[in-house]
Amino acid sequence: MSLLVVGSIAFDAVTSPFGSRDRMLGGSAVHFSLAASFFTDVRVAGPVGDDFGDEELAVLHERGVNTDDIEHVEGGQTFFWRGRYEYDLNTAHTEDTQLGVFGDFSPKLSSASTEAETVFLANIQPDLQREVRGLCTGAGLVGLDSMNLWIETARDSLVKTIGGVDLVFMNDAEIRQLTEEPNLVAAARKVLDMGPRAIVAKQGEYGAALVTADRFFALPAYPLETVRDPTGAGDSFAGGFLGHLASQGDGAGEDEGVLRRAMTYGSVLASYNVEDFGTERVRALTREEIDGRFEEFLDITAIEGVPMR
Amino acid sequence: MSLLVVGSIAFDAVTSPFGSRDRMLGGSAVHFSLAASFFTDVRVAGPVGDDFGDEELAVLHERGVNTDDIEHVEGGQTFFWRGRYEYDLNTAHTEDTQLGVFGDFSPKLSSASTEAETVFLANIQPDLQREVRGLCTGAGLVGLDSMNLWIETARDSLVKTIGGVDLVFMNDAEIRQLTEEPNLVAAARKVLDMGPRAIVAKQGEYGAALVTADRFFALPAYPLETVRDPTGAGDSFAGGFLGHLASQGDGAGEDEGVLRRAMTYGSVLASYNVEDFGTERVRALTREEIDGRFEEFLDITAIEGVPMR
Repeated sequence: MSLLVVGSIAFDAVTSPFGSRDRMLGGSAVHFSLAASFFTDVRVAGPVGDDFGDEELAVLHERGVNTDDIEHVEGGQTFFWRGRYEYDLNTAHTEDTQLGVFGDFSPKLSSASTEAETVFLANIQPDLQREVRGLCTGAGLVGLDSMNLWIETARDSLVKTIGGVDLVFMNDAEIRQLTEEPNLVAAARKVLDMGPRAIVAKQGEYGAALVTADRFFALPAYPLETVRDPTGAGDSFAGGFLGHLASQGDGAGEDEGVLRRAMTYGSVLASYNVEDFGTERVRALTREEIDGRFEEFLDITAIEGVPMR
Repeated sequence: MSLLVVGSIAFDAVTSPFGSRDRMLGGSAVHFSLAASFFTDVRVAGPVGDDFGDEELAVLHERGVNTDDIEHVEGGQTFFWRGRYEYDLNTAHTEDTQLGVFGDFSPKLSSASTEAETVFLANIQPDLQREVRGLCTGAGLVGLDSMNLWIETARDSLVKTIGGVDLVFMNDAEIRQLTEEPNLVAAARKVLDMGPRAIVAKQGEYGAALVTADRFFALPAYPLETVRDPTGAGDSFAGGFLGHLASQGDGAGEDEGVLRRAMTYGSVLASYNVEDFGTERVRALTREEIDGRFEEFLDITAIEGVPMR
């Protein structure tokens, strides 16, 4: 099945204790697309400027991502973000943000995109997310990400947008902030009450939890000894998650087993993403490596029947 | 097999968003003993004052805990702690600490205690922990807890003490602080280099991780919607963990499967402990409830073969 992502396509400058990059391909929609491309057909939509060229497109094409709905805005500049991580790596310190062509973004989608069965609304202004949701008349399953900025500046719109999607991917701190409920389980249940079928609470180095009406599932993060650049981890997670879901056909979003495998593929993709700067590691990734780490997740979470080594 | 715990026996005053208690039985050794008592024979050692009487002893005796090595210091006052939790419940705000008889504590152990096969050195000054370790000539498996205070004021002694035990239970933040290594997996490996066979990194609401030389296991916390009093959660965890281990006979500490079941029993006991103030919930607990929540942990962590409901 076809999977559409609408969100930011960007250039990132990142400094972490393990090095720095002045300008590299990034953005939510890019990290999502590359991760999802290992599982299903992916289409990416979002605006870019004159500084976005064949080299960047090639990264997406190498992974088979359809870029027909990337909108080139003449005379514009691609979204740019500069950030820095300290040793704890949990917090990104933003040093510069230049919206560029993203400032006037109004989504235009081809019919191939509006017919996509699975859609991911990456973290953009919630009014825009709702507009995209409305255009996607073929979508049977829609996921959404958001952030503290929109909780603080556009809460009502965000709640309305959440009411129209099936899956919410948010950091656990943001789920608490949105609901003003310090207990994560209680907070996730309040988000479920807004309409979605499942909440994925991303917990950074602690992993992620999946909350549905009557079930709870939690998965640790893969135990990496070195994280070089956490940028895009959440989008890679969502890409692995929705990529797997889209590959499982109709009704996959209602199957607890499929959702849990999707959580695991999401965690696998996020773990590879953070191993190197930007898209460097995921670009070089193979399906065999993904499946290998999936098996490792079975091992590191098994209470009973621990495989011998 | 017999399990000995040496640590604080206390009166606690706790205020949380869910209520308050002026004076209730507490202390590391008490929380540990009650949790462990569901699995094996438990002996508790530590000093108390004149204010500690039959009512408090009865709580331990009801659960079959041997109190022969509780030392009554004439004219003394039992260790007292007053703390407060805000809505996030992750941080205890200490309002008062009165060491009382704990200020001059010098461990004296009966021969029944020095012959215990499994020993837990609850969070006390590391010189004292090492002294107890030296007395326990029959111990085949020794676990230890510690805290930021000792990392800051007695680091060398703590490292030396860690070198003489098999299992270390510490908060993940403390493991990072002790090793000055922000990455938890790398930090835990540095603690393994000090001598122990396994590190249990307690992660509060995120659960706990078990790090050994060649394996990694992580378990989420049980998804409670209401936590009334987190005091003693770590000690209840260690009690469930070492209680199960002690019940499995010689060599259990080297069996990855037993260690992972121990992690799960620890998490079960910690989850019950925080459901109500002080020892209230664990005192009323049954083995059937423990086994029921153990089964729930199998469900909330299963990636494959999710049980139908």
